[in-house]
Amino acid sequence: MTEPFTLARLGAPGEELPVVRHAGRTLDARPVAHDFDGAFFGSDGISRLAGALGLLPELDASTMRIGAPIARPGKIVCIGLNYSDHAAETGAALPTEPVVFMKDPSTMVGPFDDVLIPRGSRKTDWEVELGVVIGSTARYLDSAADALAHVAGYAVSHDVSEREFQLERGGQWDKGKSCETFNPFGPELVPAGLVPDPQQLGLRLWVGGEMRQNGTTANMLFTVAHVVWYLSQFMVLHPGDVINTGTPAGVALGTPGNPYLRAGDIVELEIDGLGRARQRMVQA
Amino acid sequence: MTEPFTLARLGAPGEELPVVRHAGRTLDARPVAHDFDGAFFGSDGISRLAGALGLLPELDASTMRIGAPIARPGKIVCIGLNYSDHAAETGAALPTEPVVFMKDPSTMVGPFDDVLIPRGSRKTDWEVELGVVIGSTARYLDSAADALAHVAGYAVSHDVSEREFQLERGGQWDKGKSCETFNPFGPELVPAGLVPDPQQLGLRLWVGGEMRQNGTTANMLFTVAHVVWYLSQFMVLHPGDVINTGTPAGVALGTPGNPYLRAGDIVELEIDGLGRARQRMVQA
Repeated sequence: MTEPFTLARLGAPGEELPVVRHAGRTLDARPVAHDFDGAFFGSDGISRLAGALGLLPELDASTMRIGAPIARPGKIVCIGLNYSDHAAETGAALPTEPVVFMKDPSTMVGPFDDVLIPRGSRKTDWEVELGVVIGSTARYLDSAADALAHVAGYAVSHDVSEREFQLERGGQWDKGKSCETFNPFGPELVPAGLVPDPQQLGLRLWVGGEMRQNGTTANMLFTVAHVVWYLSQFMVLHPGDVINTGTPAGVALGTPGNPYLRAGDIVELEIDGLGRARQRMVQA
Repeated sequence: MTEPFTLARLGAPGEELPVVRHAGRTLDARPVAHDFDGAFFGSDGISRLAGALGLLPELDASTMRIGAPIARPGKIVCIGLNYSDHAAETGAALPTEPVVFMKDPSTMVGPFDDVLIPRGSRKTDWEVELGVVIGSTARYLDSAADALAHVAGYAVSHDVSEREFQLERGGQWDKGKSCETFNPFGPELVPAGLVPDPQQLGLRLWVGGEMRQNGTTANMLFTVAHVVWYLSQFMVLHPGDVINTGTPAGVALGTPGNPYLRAGDIVELEIDGLGRARQRMVQA
């Protein structure tokens, strides 16, 4: 894959068009892709797209909303406590194997969409994460060495979390992870072949311009390859599924004074090579 | 709704046709429904089906596989420990509000399909549950009194669970709930209007002909109406989503000797008025 390009989806919510960003231009991907969904990724869509770049018509995208770069996934699997500094700040013991939970797939929204603070929430928190999109079915993989071949690409993912719902309302974390709009994703999906090492990416998050998280995927306890291999022992990963791979230190839960998000707050987040996102918090 | 009918889907996996069971006949529902999915339920599909019964052609269904009665849901939300006798047998305290976890939606299979015992599993367990299919969007419902209006129908659901993965492998239950084939569903979806009281249904499960579970939804700690209202405070329930409402006592985890499932075992389960399902356990 010699020519760098990324995938995005543009248009009103639910009506996004698949596009390619290439050499400073925005190309209409519809001659190759109905949408950037499981069927696309599972049929070697990214390679087909790479081969067709010269044939795609340019699109005037200047006024179009930027949606999530993939269609609604079949599932969103999340890894908890996957950075030692974040585990320490939350008071949790270091996990000896990946902690796995899930998010409602319908929580995925665009990278610049508003994020809703749930009614009754007092502890809405931020988490910048490396998002992984599955490219081919992963089921009982033999080893982590095989795993990255099943990754289609990477994107900035915001695993918004309500700590009281997650930790103080009866047992399982999913309750604080699946609120409406709780997974902004994008702006772009960068094909895996264009990310030389997913364990060498800086990731940062600001609230109101103040830097709150500044980590690197080099500090993951369990690498992306390990996580994909590991999950494949417990569930089938399908093309288009998403894995949120955990967050580094600096969330409100672990910060003195617990400065949880309030309506009007602006959250910005970025990952090296994957772009930058920005969301405004709005009361639901 | 005066004429009783139920919904089913028949055909090879991934190629099921939507059908209606009515007055001893199987009717092709395709004139009314592309599939029994979120778009169908969200557009008042069951009422449209009721009005069109006389127009649907009969189908010779005698040799067709019975699939799950709905298309793959957007999410499967599960309620844990929702029967006091089951909470007691697992040694858990009675929850003061619903315990919520999730299952990978791709685990849904037909009611007579094989269930795979995961590789490395030693504690694959059964759980008969009342499955609820959402009919219209439920978001911050005002009260439980409004909630049942958002239910499309009910079905027998088997929330297969791997207890070691769920409870002994690092934190969150989802890891033992999302293995391949772990949610047989059906045989039929019974429209909500034909279930006079979802809290008066006996539910039973046998392994190898021996009755293991024999409960009633009258013993739920949190009723279906309460659960739908409660979940709507934490997430948006969309048409076609599924809620598994918990299991009564009698699972292997709570039975002397812990007779977990083995390859070759036959599990049968039924709920009053919702039909009977049967699955063979097969090593993955």
